[in-house]
Amino acid sequence: MSASNFTLDQLVDIITREVLAAYPASDDRCSGCGAACAGNCVTQCPDRCREVVGAGASRLSARPGAGKVAADLARMIDHTLLKPDATAEQIRQLCAEARENAFATVCVNPAWVRLCAELLRGSPVKVCTVIGCPLGATLPEVKAYEAERAIAHGASEIDMVQNIGALKSRDYQLVAEDIAAVVQAAHARHASVKVILETALLSDEEKVESSAIAQSAGADYVKTSTGFASGGATAADVALMRRVVGPNVGVKASGGIRSAQDAQQMIAAGATRLGASAGVKIVHEVAGGQK
Amino acid sequence: MSASNFTLDQLVDIITREVLAAYPASDDRCSGCGAACAGNCVTQCPDRCREVVGAGASRLSARPGAGKVAADLARMIDHTLLKPDATAEQIRQLCAEARENAFATVCVNPAWVRLCAELLRGSPVKVCTVIGCPLGATLPEVKAYEAERAIAHGASEIDMVQNIGALKSRDYQLVAEDIAAVVQAAHARHASVKVILETALLSDEEKVESSAIAQSAGADYVKTSTGFASGGATAADVALMRRVVGPNVGVKASGGIRSAQDAQQMIAAGATRLGASAGVKIVHEVAGGQK
Repeated sequence: MSASNFTLDQLVDIITREVLAAYPASDDRCSGCGAACAGNCVTQCPDRCREVVGAGASRLSARPGAGKVAADLARMIDHTLLKPDATAEQIRQLCAEARENAFATVCVNPAWVRLCAELLRGSPVKVCTVIGCPLGATLPEVKAYEAERAIAHGASEIDMVQNIGALKSRDYQLVAEDIAAVVQAAHARHASVKVILETALLSDEEKVESSAIAQSAGADYVKTSTGFASGGATAADVALMRRVVGPNVGVKASGGIRSAQDAQQMIAAGATRLGASAGVKIVHEVAGGQK
Repeated sequence: MSASNFTLDQLVDIITREVLAAYPASDDRCSGCGAACAGNCVTQCPDRCREVVGAGASRLSARPGAGKVAADLARMIDHTLLKPDATAEQIRQLCAEARENAFATVCVNPAWVRLCAELLRGSPVKVCTVIGCPLGATLPEVKAYEAERAIAHGASEIDMVQNIGALKSRDYQLVAEDIAAVVQAAHARHASVKVILETALLSDEEKVESSAIAQSAGADYVKTSTGFASGGATAADVALMRRVVGPNVGVKASGGIRSAQDAQQMIAAGATRLGASAGVKIVHEVAGGQK
């Protein structure tokens, strides 16, 4: 039967049931990665991965060399400064650190995008910004316009917060329209979109629902957290989100990632991008710890 | 010499110096209201006001009667629910409570404005919304557009967060332009504007600077806090802001106002509007406590 025979609500229910049915009960999950990793989980389970790393292998690169591992990790990091009282001077330092360490992006509020784009011109570091952040409770057309203006100022990655209240009210149509409006604005301008679920506020069922809606609405990534809620990324949430979106959508872990070990747990659980304000410390730990 | 002989930066410096010079040193201030209230401060000092209230007088109305006092207080309250995971059901309850208690407004995120406007049609309760909340770090044109769309959905009071990072970077021109863009959008549509300073993140000098800029940019109120920062309203901050803006601009105290005593302290310090999620409890305390 074609998907067009179903309403959005029905599709969300079906996907949710399927994913939750396929997802192992809590008792079967690895305490670190949240997946049913059994004993054969070097790509999924931090416990097993730590053993491998401890034995001298590199988890982050097939090629040996701590510098290469740190560089691989750096290229996965959105170097983040979203504090409302951040100054131009702090933003300049963020950009200098991002250049030096070759992070994926700097992630800043829209008001700082133009400055970052100027400072990072000619470098491989992109500018990422946040939309509707951190509440996610504004109107779809406002989020789309915010994305459009930020891209005009030089952003090429757009991290939008989903409408959490609409999700909680089971208004899946609005959740989807909200994301689609930003995706349309961003993709038309060759920018990518990450949808922030704010997992700390969601049940497992809601994490699945919103991951599925985001994917269906054209998101390039699903992302765990704004960094402003009571909790941030967990390996279990990253694993769950990865399981929902499959291999063709990115998963960004963010919020509370403060060490190389945190970073490695998230990657092991399926994250392909990390948001962190401690990126410099993290890559130095990796470079130093494996020398 | 005309004000036009000065740059905005110079004017801000001059006003800041004047106000801080007129403002008493910390040692001379009342611990409650932050003003130099000496012993003659029933309209300024919560300590003195509590004595009067304790002696049976009404501070909130010249006419006796607990019901009237509670009603006067209710008309000063923006009944507030800004949690990102608030549901439609909770918003409905907020509106029902606002109708029942005749609060000034309900204060909600933009995504809920239309529902609130529908629910409050025919009542004196207005709809207030927040713009650029809580970070204040988006672009002026985005804040203006967000205000415009929220007004189209039924908002008539606009609480915008100033660009705190620009203030900290001493880019007063941007702080002013940001506010002016929202004021222009709102006033053209007969809506009023409150500018949220987020006092918990500011020095006293910055509180004075931003109050002066907001007033100069056409704000109808200055407001202490978003409720999302580490701290909320203090009587000292309210008194300072009132001193800067004089009698013709409103002062809204918000963040952490949880009791009738908190409310009375803010009013005594110069607040003309209160933002609170505990409005029902507060007016019931006043009505019950003075029976």
